[in-house]
Amino acid sequence: MHQEQRRRAQAKLAAHGIERALFANLNSVKWLAGLAPPVQLGPNLFAGGPLLVWYQEGRFTLLAVDTDAAAAEAFGRQPDCAVVSYPGYTIKAPLAGAEHLVTALQQVVAGSAGRDGQVGVEMRDVPAWLMATLQETLPPSTEFIPIDGWLEPLRAVKTEEELDKLRKNFALTDVGHAAARRAVQAGQREIDVWTAIHSAVERAAGCRVPMGNDCIVGHRPANIGGWPLDYEIRPDDAFIVDLSTVWHGYWSDSCATYYPGEPTAQQIAMHRTVSEALAFAISLVRPGAVAQEIDRRVRQFIADAGYPVYPHHTGHGVGVSGHEAPRLVPYSQEVLKEGMVFMLEPAIYLPGETGVRLEDAVLVTSGGAEVLTKHDKSLQRGR
Amino acid sequence: MHQEQRRRAQAKLAAHGIERALFANLNSVKWLAGLAPPVQLGPNLFAGGPLLVWYQEGRFTLLAVDTDAAAAEAFGRQPDCAVVSYPGYTIKAPLAGAEHLVTALQQVVAGSAGRDGQVGVEMRDVPAWLMATLQETLPPSTEFIPIDGWLEPLRAVKTEEELDKLRKNFALTDVGHAAARRAVQAGQREIDVWTAIHSAVERAAGCRVPMGNDCIVGHRPANIGGWPLDYEIRPDDAFIVDLSTVWHGYWSDSCATYYPGEPTAQQIAMHRTVSEALAFAISLVRPGAVAQEIDRRVRQFIADAGYPVYPHHTGHGVGVSGHEAPRLVPYSQEVLKEGMVFMLEPAIYLPGETGVRLEDAVLVTSGGAEVLTKHDKSLQRGR
Repeated sequence: MHQEQRRRAQAKLAAHGIERALFANLNSVKWLAGLAPPVQLGPNLFAGGPLLVWYQEGRFTLLAVDTDAAAAEAFGRQPDCAVVSYPGYTIKAPLAGAEHLVTALQQVVAGSAGRDGQVGVEMRDVPAWLMATLQETLPPSTEFIPIDGWLEPLRAVKTEEELDKLRKNFALTDVGHAAARRAVQAGQREIDVWTAIHSAVERAAGCRVPMGNDCIVGHRPANIGGWPLDYEIRPDDAFIVDLSTVWHGYWSDSCATYYPGEPTAQQIAMHRTVSEALAFAISLVRPGAVAQEIDRRVRQFIADAGYPVYPHHTGHGVGVSGHEAPRLVPYSQEVLKEGMVFMLEPAIYLPGETGVRLEDAVLVTSGGAEVLTKHDKSLQRGR
Repeated sequence: MHQEQRRRAQAKLAAHGIERALFANLNSVKWLAGLAPPVQLGPNLFAGGPLLVWYQEGRFTLLAVDTDAAAAEAFGRQPDCAVVSYPGYTIKAPLAGAEHLVTALQQVVAGSAGRDGQVGVEMRDVPAWLMATLQETLPPSTEFIPIDGWLEPLRAVKTEEELDKLRKNFALTDVGHAAARRAVQAGQREIDVWTAIHSAVERAAGCRVPMGNDCIVGHRPANIGGWPLDYEIRPDDAFIVDLSTVWHGYWSDSCATYYPGEPTAQQIAMHRTVSEALAFAISLVRPGAVAQEIDRRVRQFIADAGYPVYPHHTGHGVGVSGHEAPRLVPYSQEVLKEGMVFMLEPAIYLPGETGVRLEDAVLVTSGGAEVLTKHDKSLQRGR
C-alpha cells in the first residue's frame, strides 16, 4: 500500500541529508499513506487537527483523530508504518482534540528529541501551534527545512496501484458523462443536468463520491466554466460538461460538449476542429516529449483553423489532486515520462456566443499514449 | 453584512487589550465576513493559501486568492472592511500563490509594523510559514496571543441576518426529508435514497449544496450513523435519515426515521417514545435553562420509558459550523439565551436490531422555543 511512494519520498529526503520530516499537506498525506480521508466541509467537525505524517529514518507514522484512525488501520499494518490516534469528540468533557494532538505529536517526536540535525517540515500546511510543539520538543539546534512542494514532482509518474485507482475513477466519470448526454435537454436547467450526473455516479459507485469542477451551458458571458446554476438550457446551446470525480482519494477529470437541439453549422465546425485538436494532442504524447512543445503545437492547431486560442492550459496532471505535474502550459519544460497521467483539453470559445471543449486523460506509455477516459465525445443532436 | 459579528469580535479583543489580530479558522472567517467560500476538496486547487482576516483597530481586511476575491466583493464594500487579493493560478509562470500571499500579508501588516504590543493569532489554523511572516514583519517585542476558540461563544446567539440564512437552509433540508420519505422503499439501497435527497435539495436550491452527516438503515451493526452505502433496504428496517445542508455558509441539521414496510410493534413503541422525548426536550427550552439540565432530563425520559439511553449528545448548536455552542451534553453548564439555535435529537438504539432518532432545530425565544425544522417526523408505513 503506497510503499513505492514512501520509498521515493525517503530517497528525496535522504538526497538532502534529511532523516526526519513532518508532512501536513493533505495531498502529501494521501499520497504517502494511500488514504482517502472523508471530505471535511470546513474545520474538522469532530474536533481533531489536520492529518499528519511524521517520518523518521524509514518509518512513517500517521497521526489521526480517533474518528479518522479507523480508516487508517490498513496503513498501520504496513511494515514501515504506524498509526497514532488521539481522542477527538466526546460528550464527557469540553473538547480537547487540539491538546490531545499536541501530546500525540510530542510523544511521536520525542524518540528523536536527543538528536541534532535537520527536520523537514511542510511549513505551508503545518499550523503554527504544531510548529511550536516541534520547536519546544526538539533541541534548539534543530534546523527546520521547508519541504513544501517536494513531493509533487515525485507524484507525476504513477504506480500500478495508482493506475488501478485512476482507471476505476475514470470509469465512474464515464458513467457521469453518459448521464449528462441523456439529461441535456432544452427546458431543463444546468442544475438538473448536474443532479442527474452526480446521482448516476454515486449509484454506480455505491457510495458518496465528491465531485469537483464545473458544468455549464454555452450562453453564459464567458461560456468557459462555473458551477451549475438555475439557468435554463436553450435549444441552441453548446452545453459544456466538465467533470471530476474523487475516488479513493484520486481525482479524475474529463470534458464533453452536448447539444440540446440541432447544432448550428458553426458549432459543427467548431466541434470537428476541437475533436481533431484533441486527436492531434494525443498523437504528440510519448516519453521524451516536452510539455511546452505539446502546448504550443495544440494552440497553433486551433489558431491555424482560424479560431481564437483558448486562454487556459492545454492540460494538467491528475492524481491525489485535481491539478498537478505535468502541466501542459507555455512555461513548462517538463519532459514526459512513461507512467505519467494527464489531461488534454483543447477548446474554442466565442464569448457570449458559444463554446466547445473536449477533454481526455492519457497515460504515457512506451509507445505513446493510452487514453483512459472512454466517454463519448461525438457530436450528436440532443433529444 | 455581519457588522454585528465584527462588533462582537472587536469588543472581545478590546476587553483583552488586543487591537490587532489574524484570523485563519474558516469558521471565524465565514462568521466575520459573511462569506460562503466554495468547498475545497483538499488543498486549494487554484494555488492560493487559506482565507485570512487581518483585524486592526476596527478594520477587517480579507486576504483572498483572486478566484475567491470575486465572491468577497460585497464584503469589501462595507465601511469597516477591505479585500486584498493576490494572484493564484496562471498558465504564464510556475505557480507562486504561496509567495504572493506572503507579500500581501506583509503589506497588510506593515501598516502597524512600527508598533509594539499584542497581536492575537488563531495559532491552530495560521500555517507556520505565515506565522513566520508575521514574526519577521512585526517588531521582535511583539507578543503573539493565541485566540483560538475565542469567537465560538460569540457565535452562539444568532443575528437576524443569520436567522434568515438558517431559516432558508432549514427549508432546504425539509425538501430533502420529503424526498427521503418518498424514496425509502424495500429493495432500494441507501445510496439511492441519498441521491434522491441530494438531487431534490439541489434542484430546489438551483445550485450545488454541500451536504454533511449521515443517512443509514437500521440493520447496520451499530445502527446509529454513517455515510450511505450499497446496502439494500429491508422491509423491516427503521431507516434513519440524518441530514445537514450548507447554505450560504450556514449549516442545518435534522433527523427522521422512515419505515419501508409495516413497522413492528417494537418500532411503533420506540418511535412514539422518541417523539415524546423530542416534544419534552423542546418544552424545556427557554432563556435561563441550563444545557446539562436539559440533557439530563431528556436522557432520564428515555430511561424512564425502559430503553437504553443514547450514547451521543442530546443536541448541539449549528451556525457556520455543524457542531458548536451551545452543546447539550452532560458537562455543559451553559445558560441558554434568546437567539441561540440548536438541535435536539433524542434516540433509542437497539444495536443489531433497530433504531429510531428524531431531530428538530430550535430557536430560543423570550417565551420558550420556536421550531425551525418543519419536516414530517410522523410514523407512516412506507409505500
